[in-house]
Amino acid sequence: MSDQPVRFAPRGPTEEVEEGLTFAPKFDHDGVVTCVATDASSGDVLMVAHMNAEALARTIESGEAWYFSRSRGTLWRKGESSGHTQRVVEMRVDCDQDAVWIKVEQSGGGACHTGRRSCFYRAVPIGGRADTLVLEFRDAGKRFDPKAVYGKPEK
Amino acid sequence: MSDQPVRFAPRGPTEEVEEGLTFAPKFDHDGVVTCVATDASSGDVLMVAHMNAEALARTIESGEAWYFSRSRGTLWRKGESSGHTQRVVEMRVDCDQDAVWIKVEQSGGGACHTGRRSCFYRAVPIGGRADTLVLEFRDAGKRFDPKAVYGKPEK
Repeated sequence: MSDQPVRFAPRGPTEEVEEGLTFAPKFDHDGVVTCVATDASSGDVLMVAHMNAEALARTIESGEAWYFSRSRGTLWRKGESSGHTQRVVEMRVDCDQDAVWIKVEQSGGGACHTGRRSCFYRAVPIGGRADTLVLEFRDAGKRFDPKAVYGKPEK
Repeated sequence: MSDQPVRFAPRGPTEEVEEGLTFAPKFDHDGVVTCVATDASSGDVLMVAHMNAEALARTIESGEAWYFSRSRGTLWRKGESSGHTQRVVEMRVDCDQDAVWIKVEQSGGGACHTGRRSCFYRAVPIGGRADTLVLEFRDAGKRFDPKAVYGKPEK
């Protein structure tokens, strides 16, 4: 890991950002990009979180997922409490470079602090009124006991 | 589509948000949730965008993806310029209800305004220094000619 402050390239014109080979991530007013983590095997979305420049650099350099908690204002390595780390198989960046997609090998059975494989364990029914809908559990089985794994909530 | 203002349920305690069947999305300080759209067939991430309450309600009620542009401050239906709409096969919400995942059937060959199938057409190499990396095009073939499709950029 570099000891220097993280410096990504400055943002160029749109053509360069979208069609070039320079990595110039666009951090929002909270200083983060959005990160989508999918299971490298199944393709399922495991979680959506954020990375500041430091978390992004550490993820790239170590090959393990690091995130930044906007609510707590802290950098965290996925699995630092639970042991359930994420090994990054591939990282992609989107057209305007304000979001990254990582395909990961999730250790320990689940990515979600509730004990599920994925954080997305409830479906929102489509086609009815939005204000009277009832969620439906989907792929919601617990893979681990969160109370046993966490001394305190990871997220 | 309801003519009434969109009213989602108020946020309850954490246990209810995470384990309950009430849809109580957490809109951030910009008034949006993050939305990840994946291809219902391949599972690939097509795009990451945002939905305000109105976009979220319209998506749920119509089964077509609507988004909200934070930079332009406008509601937009995916495909309203290009004709490349997204039919929502399934919607999921995450544990703390600040992100949704939609599995979509993408019409017109591509989700990205650059003409690609997915907005994530460049890989970020893992394992080297973050500040000297060079992006690599991946699955970056054009599915349509953006200049022919858009009178003006959709995104």
